[in-house]
Amino acid sequence: MNPPTDEAQPVVADRTLHTVTIVGTGMMGTSVALALRRHGVRTYLLDCDAQAAETAAKMGAGVVGSPSSTADLVVLAVPPRSIAPVLVQQQALRSGRVYTDVGSVKAGPLAAAEALGCDLTSYVGGHPIAGSERSGPRAASGTLFQDKAWVLTSHPGNDTAAVAAVTELIRLCGARPVAMTQSAHDRALARTSHVPHLISSILAGTLDGADQQLLALCGAGITDTTRIAAGDSALWTDILQSNALEVAAALAEVAAGLTTAAHALATGSADLTELLRRGNAGRGALLTARTRLRSRK
Amino acid sequence: MNPPTDEAQPVVADRTLHTVTIVGTGMMGTSVALALRRHGVRTYLLDCDAQAAETAAKMGAGVVGSPSSTADLVVLAVPPRSIAPVLVQQQALRSGRVYTDVGSVKAGPLAAAEALGCDLTSYVGGHPIAGSERSGPRAASGTLFQDKAWVLTSHPGNDTAAVAAVTELIRLCGARPVAMTQSAHDRALARTSHVPHLISSILAGTLDGADQQLLALCGAGITDTTRIAAGDSALWTDILQSNALEVAAALAEVAAGLTTAAHALATGSADLTELLRRGNAGRGALLTARTRLRSRK
Repeated sequence: MNPPTDEAQPVVADRTLHTVTIVGTGMMGTSVALALRRHGVRTYLLDCDAQAAETAAKMGAGVVGSPSSTADLVVLAVPPRSIAPVLVQQQALRSGRVYTDVGSVKAGPLAAAEALGCDLTSYVGGHPIAGSERSGPRAASGTLFQDKAWVLTSHPGNDTAAVAAVTELIRLCGARPVAMTQSAHDRALARTSHVPHLISSILAGTLDGADQQLLALCGAGITDTTRIAAGDSALWTDILQSNALEVAAALAEVAAGLTTAAHALATGSADLTELLRRGNAGRGALLTARTRLRSRK
Repeated sequence: MNPPTDEAQPVVADRTLHTVTIVGTGMMGTSVALALRRHGVRTYLLDCDAQAAETAAKMGAGVVGSPSSTADLVVLAVPPRSIAPVLVQQQALRSGRVYTDVGSVKAGPLAAAEALGCDLTSYVGGHPIAGSERSGPRAASGTLFQDKAWVLTSHPGNDTAAVAAVTELIRLCGARPVAMTQSAHDRALARTSHVPHLISSILAGTLDGADQQLLALCGAGITDTTRIAAGDSALWTDILQSNALEVAAALAEVAAGLTTAAHALATGSADLTELLRRGNAGRGALLTARTRLRSRK
């Protein structure tokens, strides 16, 4: 696949983002920085792990350190529970005109930011629907967000200019902004990402300590269902705990399916076929939605 | 990907398989037939759905109907619960010298065949670890089994020549024979295939009836974890019910993981990280095993 050229990117008229600071140069933060670099945006890289920031810089993601003047935008690419504390810190330094994040949970971090007394007018939450089971800057890609959805969870207190700046970030990254409330996002993501991750991990966990004979019988099915189980366990603990109520609700739905399956296996009831047919229908709905989104490009 | 040439196939010295009948021309049966055709084996195709057999024949899988004389081998590519009844029928017709199957469950069909009075000396169970979420002859491929494991569940009553014939089939299909007992196979497959399928279906089922906004937020993770949920619901009901005890045992392990997760979400305990780390370890074990197998080629 050829990397799209700048010409192929959505046009951003009257560019306002010239200097962007990325706090957190893991896979996500470095990918944002690389995407911005493709448009000539000056990117500055900060990470509590100096090695990670250096690695990102060597990959062409930008310059390690803070810009000499206020950045047009500060992107917090840190785990959900660190968003509010890092936002407080960055706002105290007046490091940017606008702040956003790329976290997989939206309501908790906003509530925490409010509780910590952050300026909420300049903070607009965001979440690109793109990722990798690999972590760290080396897993980053400047085309990670190409044609992907990027949820924008602005709130009524936001400055219009702040929302515009984050929308510009999304477009520069090649993604498609999708406006949602924090709670709608968290409810959806529990089902589309957090519970699938948890289930994939539990499935993969059943292979821990398995003998070689069993492992040699793992085909494409279990290989695909457990891919995301390789994700960073500290980051995912944070994500799951930060969205605990919604994850628990979605998990209960899966647990009910397991109970139905166990009962059907014991009694030979037709509920098993019904469960599998519902799986066919859900998978069909997912594929139809993906096809529809692709055709919109 | 170029299809491997005949030269690249494992050499089978003193070929004994010249005529093979395939009963059931779905994805698996047609793939076996196509693989054998690449070696010039004369293949005959039978299916209770005449249209499926015709489609397979048009794809170059062989000739519809039975050979005029006894086949060297009859491959039963039918769902697990149909194996014994179809074996009785084929043995009554003396259609082959040797019989095998490609079913995902091994103990039940052998017990059923014994109960129905089949000749067990000439029946050697088999199960290629390869498949597709798509079904029917059009989903077949002559290279489906290339470099894959193919479990051979011979039993003490088997004729040596029968085991040799099925081993030859496996090698002609480009696969690697793995000898196992029926019960070891069924225990392993419950964990490596049947429960992952069930869990994938349950996860996909939670998307049935979901709104477009939620479906638009499905990323690569849930897309991969639910791929196999597209599988044929009637076939998978048969597989799961035919291996109900082992599937129930493996399912209970997953259910215990869900309970741990739900408790950890409610209490914020460190068990969640431990669960995710176990997932990392299991995924690592799977990838290591796959790398080891690939390097053996």
